[in-house]
Amino acid sequence: MTELALLQNVRPNAGSVTDILIQNGRIAKIAPEISDLPADVTLLDGGGDIALPGLIEAHTHMDKTLYGLSWQPHSAGPTIRDKVDNERRIVKKLNIDSAQRSATQTRLEIGNGSTHIRTHVDVNNERGLGYLEGVLATQAAFKESVTIQVVAFPQQGILASPGTEAYLNEAAKLGIDCIGGIDPSVIERDPVKHLDIIFGIADKHGLGIDIHLHEPGQLGAFTVELIAERTKALGLRGKVMISHAFCLGGVDEPYLDRLTQMLLDNEIAIMTHGPGQSVYPPILKLSAAGVILCTGSDGIRDSWGPYGNGDMLERVMWLGYRSNFRRDEELAIALSMATTGAAKALGVENYGLDVGCDADIVVVKGETVAQAIMDRAARRLVLKRGKVTAADGHCLV
Amino acid sequence: MTELALLQNVRPNAGSVTDILIQNGRIAKIAPEISDLPADVTLLDGGGDIALPGLIEAHTHMDKTLYGLSWQPHSAGPTIRDKVDNERRIVKKLNIDSAQRSATQTRLEIGNGSTHIRTHVDVNNERGLGYLEGVLATQAAFKESVTIQVVAFPQQGILASPGTEAYLNEAAKLGIDCIGGIDPSVIERDPVKHLDIIFGIADKHGLGIDIHLHEPGQLGAFTVELIAERTKALGLRGKVMISHAFCLGGVDEPYLDRLTQMLLDNEIAIMTHGPGQSVYPPILKLSAAGVILCTGSDGIRDSWGPYGNGDMLERVMWLGYRSNFRRDEELAIALSMATTGAAKALGVENYGLDVGCDADIVVVKGETVAQAIMDRAARRLVLKRGKVTAADGHCLV
Repeated sequence: MTELALLQNVRPNAGSVTDILIQNGRIAKIAPEISDLPADVTLLDGGGDIALPGLIEAHTHMDKTLYGLSWQPHSAGPTIRDKVDNERRIVKKLNIDSAQRSATQTRLEIGNGSTHIRTHVDVNNERGLGYLEGVLATQAAFKESVTIQVVAFPQQGILASPGTEAYLNEAAKLGIDCIGGIDPSVIERDPVKHLDIIFGIADKHGLGIDIHLHEPGQLGAFTVELIAERTKALGLRGKVMISHAFCLGGVDEPYLDRLTQMLLDNEIAIMTHGPGQSVYPPILKLSAAGVILCTGSDGIRDSWGPYGNGDMLERVMWLGYRSNFRRDEELAIALSMATTGAAKALGVENYGLDVGCDADIVVVKGETVAQAIMDRAARRLVLKRGKVTAADGHCLV
Repeated sequence: MTELALLQNVRPNAGSVTDILIQNGRIAKIAPEISDLPADVTLLDGGGDIALPGLIEAHTHMDKTLYGLSWQPHSAGPTIRDKVDNERRIVKKLNIDSAQRSATQTRLEIGNGSTHIRTHVDVNNERGLGYLEGVLATQAAFKESVTIQVVAFPQQGILASPGTEAYLNEAAKLGIDCIGGIDPSVIERDPVKHLDIIFGIADKHGLGIDIHLHEPGQLGAFTVELIAERTKALGLRGKVMISHAFCLGGVDEPYLDRLTQMLLDNEIAIMTHGPGQSVYPPILKLSAAGVILCTGSDGIRDSWGPYGNGDMLERVMWLGYRSNFRRDEELAIALSMATTGAAKALGVENYGLDVGCDADIVVVKGETVAQAIMDRAARRLVLKRGKVTAADGHCLV
């Protein structure tokens, strides 16, 4: 049976007013005032607002958000190691249920217009695969409403946390998307060994790689080189993401140019959430060079920090503010990091507002796209394959 | 006739639930479940939410916000000079009505919980005192709902814009609060002459000084010294603010310590809006030293840039994120820059949630103050001297 929906009176990417006909979850026709439809068509009123392709949350940690729980004052020390250790204490104290935690954040994200989420899920020698199973349950429960990609993430290290490697090997068989990694030198103390392990697992199971790289300057840049070498050697072109990559903001121009070429040659994507204080990848320069860029909330209100609300439009605004983007065309680049760029980074197919694409659409008030980013009005409608998942800022699933 | 209002069921600064009795605009009593009141008392339901003292917007430019007008894509070049020149074109093209513009922003700020605003108003040789008159009209129109302090601001310079000095002298007689200034070296090309003019006018008319200082590093720091010298010489201790003061984030520690001592000796306040990209004053260090700190939106959606929404809680969140504040006590310092610190900086009397203070109060949802900053829920109630000016995020005046 054919399912028909008509999204009426929207302006795709702030263009002219039109209707969007959705057939079996895909965009079938885009034209003004589409009529002569069967009586059982579902009519959706866009109110003349902007239609954007569904927002993509390309990097978060849904398994351990404390969003929705009683307020937990931040208690970690300043280093990455302090935060990793503090987290162990917090999640044990609160007896975190990762299925419940991830479901709460999923609803928050849907309400804000996300149709795709990539989440890193802790796998370690204390929790084993427990968190992963919880998030996979959320992935299944919400599969009609949002696409969730899962990264098995050794937050506490692999070499630094013996036993984790075996769990990652098990995780790889559970239908996940990527193997994660973390600071091969600063946390793991052996960059080659760490990278060889995660690339080995990914290669064996046909998975992607998404590695957290907070290492600064020359040290992090050397890690980028090692990642590029392994991506090439294993033929993983287009399947590797480096998240954070602060180092790209901390090397000189000629070296940055060489690193950029390695990213391009291997189609390695870069994720930045626009950190508050540390240097971070130079968005305009990388974008102009053609590097695949995306953004995400990172942790939302967890033991790492109190920030974040799962609103990718706010994240885009923040990226723009942090990068001193004032022009509409610069803001469009920031937005692409939560839309088209993120779709490339995550390998999302049939993405966009063209005929044939999945009808993953967010409708939001604004005269222009730039204004929509600044106002961040409650999302009027969010559609996942044509089904309404949120209205007026509220998740309906 | 005595006017009585009872704000019931609030938690001052996220403390215990209590009632606040307001008599003729002032806090008369704070106690749980106040009863036995006359029948004509106005009852206000705080819903168990947090009560904070009214938020203070310590630095904005209400005369030329484009908020509420059709979207204007940003069109200025990168330098301060480019932006000043571009602004001349934009305001001429749009034929800005500063009374209307400032009234629009005033309502926006009231809806977000502001009870006090300091705004810089352009005075120059093209507009003369026209913008100032417009904002003074708004100040008068809203005087029961928000306290507006006005700075006569030579945005385009005094030396660089001949004729402006005479207008500033005229402006000083119109009941304004401060004489403004701008980058005495970079824009004006003669730091001593610029500063002597603005300090001279302020001294003559018994006004404060609030100077925009974007000048970086050693250059800006030298200007800070010149400002401190004149503050001391003229006995203007406690009446001078340096806005932006990026330079305080760009000098070495020993020099910063010497500058800090000059700020303390002369009670010179520092305003930072938490710029996206440039260095800015080190909040924790200055706060620990006892320097008076405050924050503001700066321009909201004007020819200088598209950002800002007049929500001081969002500004506080931003300051915290930008400064890598994660702990509740750090966030409390950021909040103080929009409350108690700003009150000191602006010389606001009878400020706070104690008996005898003006009943300028904002009520907002949150388990803790830190959570209220993160959630930035629509303000439940905003009171100015006991009168409700906004409810559920909407300005009522």
